[in-house]
Amino acid sequence: MAKEVTSRSENYSQWYNDLVVKADLAEQSAVRGCMVIKPYGYAIWEKMQHELDKMFKETGHVNAYFPLFIPKSFFSREAEHVAGFAKECAVVTHHRLMNDPNGKGVVVDPDAKLEEELIVRPTSETIIWSTYKNWITSWRDLPILCNQWANVVRWEMRTRLFLRTAEFLWQEGHTAHATAQEAIEETNRMVNVYADFARNVMALPVIVGHKSPNERFAGALDTLTIEAMMQDGKALQAGTSHFLGQNFAKSFDVTYTNKEGKQEYVWATSWGVSTRLMGALIMSHGDDNGLVLPPKLAPIQVVMVPIFKTEEEHNAILDKMYEIKKELEAAGHSVKVDDRDTLRPGFKFAEWELKGVPVRVAIGPRDLANGTVELARRDTLTKESAPMEGLSARIDALLEDIQKNIYEKAATYRAANIRKVDTWEEFKTEIQKGGFLLCHWDGTPETEQAIKDETKATIRCIPEDTVVCEEEGKCIYSGKPSSRRVVFAISY
Amino acid sequence: MAKEVTSRSENYSQWYNDLVVKADLAEQSAVRGCMVIKPYGYAIWEKMQHELDKMFKETGHVNAYFPLFIPKSFFSREAEHVAGFAKECAVVTHHRLMNDPNGKGVVVDPDAKLEEELIVRPTSETIIWSTYKNWITSWRDLPILCNQWANVVRWEMRTRLFLRTAEFLWQEGHTAHATAQEAIEETNRMVNVYADFARNVMALPVIVGHKSPNERFAGALDTLTIEAMMQDGKALQAGTSHFLGQNFAKSFDVTYTNKEGKQEYVWATSWGVSTRLMGALIMSHGDDNGLVLPPKLAPIQVVMVPIFKTEEEHNAILDKMYEIKKELEAAGHSVKVDDRDTLRPGFKFAEWELKGVPVRVAIGPRDLANGTVELARRDTLTKESAPMEGLSARIDALLEDIQKNIYEKAATYRAANIRKVDTWEEFKTEIQKGGFLLCHWDGTPETEQAIKDETKATIRCIPEDTVVCEEEGKCIYSGKPSSRRVVFAISY
Repeated sequence: MAKEVTSRSENYSQWYNDLVVKADLAEQSAVRGCMVIKPYGYAIWEKMQHELDKMFKETGHVNAYFPLFIPKSFFSREAEHVAGFAKECAVVTHHRLMNDPNGKGVVVDPDAKLEEELIVRPTSETIIWSTYKNWITSWRDLPILCNQWANVVRWEMRTRLFLRTAEFLWQEGHTAHATAQEAIEETNRMVNVYADFARNVMALPVIVGHKSPNERFAGALDTLTIEAMMQDGKALQAGTSHFLGQNFAKSFDVTYTNKEGKQEYVWATSWGVSTRLMGALIMSHGDDNGLVLPPKLAPIQVVMVPIFKTEEEHNAILDKMYEIKKELEAAGHSVKVDDRDTLRPGFKFAEWELKGVPVRVAIGPRDLANGTVELARRDTLTKESAPMEGLSARIDALLEDIQKNIYEKAATYRAANIRKVDTWEEFKTEIQKGGFLLCHWDGTPETEQAIKDETKATIRCIPEDTVVCEEEGKCIYSGKPSSRRVVFAISY
Repeated sequence: MAKEVTSRSENYSQWYNDLVVKADLAEQSAVRGCMVIKPYGYAIWEKMQHELDKMFKETGHVNAYFPLFIPKSFFSREAEHVAGFAKECAVVTHHRLMNDPNGKGVVVDPDAKLEEELIVRPTSETIIWSTYKNWITSWRDLPILCNQWANVVRWEMRTRLFLRTAEFLWQEGHTAHATAQEAIEETNRMVNVYADFARNVMALPVIVGHKSPNERFAGALDTLTIEAMMQDGKALQAGTSHFLGQNFAKSFDVTYTNKEGKQEYVWATSWGVSTRLMGALIMSHGDDNGLVLPPKLAPIQVVMVPIFKTEEEHNAILDKMYEIKKELEAAGHSVKVDDRDTLRPGFKFAEWELKGVPVRVAIGPRDLANGTVELARRDTLTKESAPMEGLSARIDALLEDIQKNIYEKAATYRAANIRKVDTWEEFKTEIQKGGFLLCHWDGTPETEQAIKDETKATIRCIPEDTVVCEEEGKCIYSGKPSSRRVVFAISY
């Protein structure tokens, strides 16, 4: 093996970290809590960005860019927002360094203190709504449908690569509407864009639903979420879309003149996904050999490894491989020929398995003579012999099948780990086994908090589903009546 | 007119600002020195990014992402770098806010002081080379060819939208090589990528050359630059590529084992262009009616404006326009139909001229009957009638011609404003008229500084050109011998 990976059963958390680091996705930096996203990891993130950006534009959104810094006072404007976001954050207090008068390096210049401290954005509602105030006068200026690709900083105490880092990359959509109805529709539209993306691009089955008030975004009237199940049975919140009502419009005094000539406050939404999706991708599909990437996000979809004894064989096989590569690239696939002559094929196989490349093509002297190749798929680890003739079409079909199979595997795992639980005793036992528990809840924040305090489980979402969840019952904790089941789980 | 634009002759600086703000490219934000890039401006930047990113990848580079924050001590490691960059910068000193004990908003929590201050990156050499140390062991790990798209912050006292802002967006390439020769080749390769991009995409004629030691990047052994002439005759540095020697490798102790088994320090380059390019684009092509965008960067290449009296006419023309739009889009053009029914055509014409849309298509009832359209080009403000039949091909040719013409116009302007100057008296007069002066210089920093102190002019670059510049002569200031002319100008 190229690099040893801890198995999931031995230590799931270490397994995750091994995959991130050993597959060259990311690493810790010299700055506490901030990661370096390495080229291979960044290439996956770029593919995510590309697909999402296309989906945002298809739904009428445009990109813009707002400042990294937010004046401290802006956070005090929206009461709930300040409580949620203005706590653990990076605070800029000075704007100059100077040579240390004692001759040792540089020190902060005490004369360069800012009048008002600046916060490195943890999210941009406040700075964006202070800007929208100047953009909006009449109903003709609405809707505004902006998205921003940016870095944000939340000073997390415990960090994990991709899942929780002080700095992370994300996109944040911020829209402004004339009516509540329109804003609610936008909130729904975007959570569904996220769900489509998760399912069809990331091969990630997700449950769409509302957050309970305890778990809502600070300043939102409603938060919609997509929740995914990881292979340890924990939930991961993969994207959220918020209906913000008129809260930010009121805090920043953003009004418009409606068609009847009356002044009204503007309605808002915001929605975002982040590099956390990388964590979801790794944890839902990876196995004990390494990453398993869905073809739609794999920076390399097909890797070709020559099997040879002599240099002559190597050269002949490589020639053929470059020929095939051209053909596959013309069909739109990304292909790498591993022509390193100092490494054994077994080492290369393990390395590309670790990196999750969906399809491996091996060619030996006998294959070359026969006009065949050995095809191996990463998801099932199965192999087949295939003729070189028509290889592109075979690989097309294979990639499509892998994309589908990865989704189905994750969906099957999830289905096996969702169960209905109806009593508190059962809940306390079952929640320790992991998975999603569908339970009745009395709808109060107090009950949710009590359940969390006792079991660490939270309500991941209240699905809109009408088949399984919509039924009368009694709250597992308080016994009070409930009209629908919600999803409980322990989460990342 | 939709919005009044100051003319260039009246006030060039105000004209520039009018274009940026009134064409909806960018605006000042609530944070001193930080701008908001508005959707129309950001769409142009996205196109620049897209083209550049493609060129970087074609030359073998990959993208990655490094932390926003840099520990203060890192800046002290490279002696010249600290002098150049660790001065005016944003310093993070705390990581938490708390509720004001006096009940007024939030204040910085004095208990959350960082042990070591963090600097918001003004450029990333230090944090990247501290990372490369872990990536490089042997010659097999080289070269490393990384690029990063990111925001950076330099605390500028006087800011101008796009040209000089506290926060700006850019890309920074950071490469590591086994030999000086390879690093020098990379430095050259990338300045030529920038020159190609400027000329062929931005329609911007640029001069490629070396910076004089006074104007070099802090920590570089050599800086290559592309310099463009704006319409006021001033120079704008549009992109730079630095040969950093082994300075950063030595500061961060980055060595590799060469093929002979010996430890060697690694050789470095870095290169970058920023949202400053937006400023160059606006100032080199714009006219008194507004922006003039090269078709390759125009978010809207063709705008269609209906001319009508009755609603019936409006509808019939719009139907035709949507039909034509489809056809043009299929040919790869971006097209907008301006179907706003509350605005007069004259108003719309002025608005799209202000926004620099290369081609305008107007259709009136008579055109509709005749199967013709009125085509207007933004660069020359000329109009022609064209048959609807074959319109796509006509527009293809027109866009290509506009791209070419804009470049030629700028090149002609530049040619008219470059002149050889051979005496100090003449220099002092000529430099006030603007333009580039080709002069002999004795090669000393003292002379360059003296010329700058007296005239504000600096050496923009030392071109490698062998036709015009390579000749024996005498320094305009000191009279000492010189073997080549260099480019002097007053710059942005």
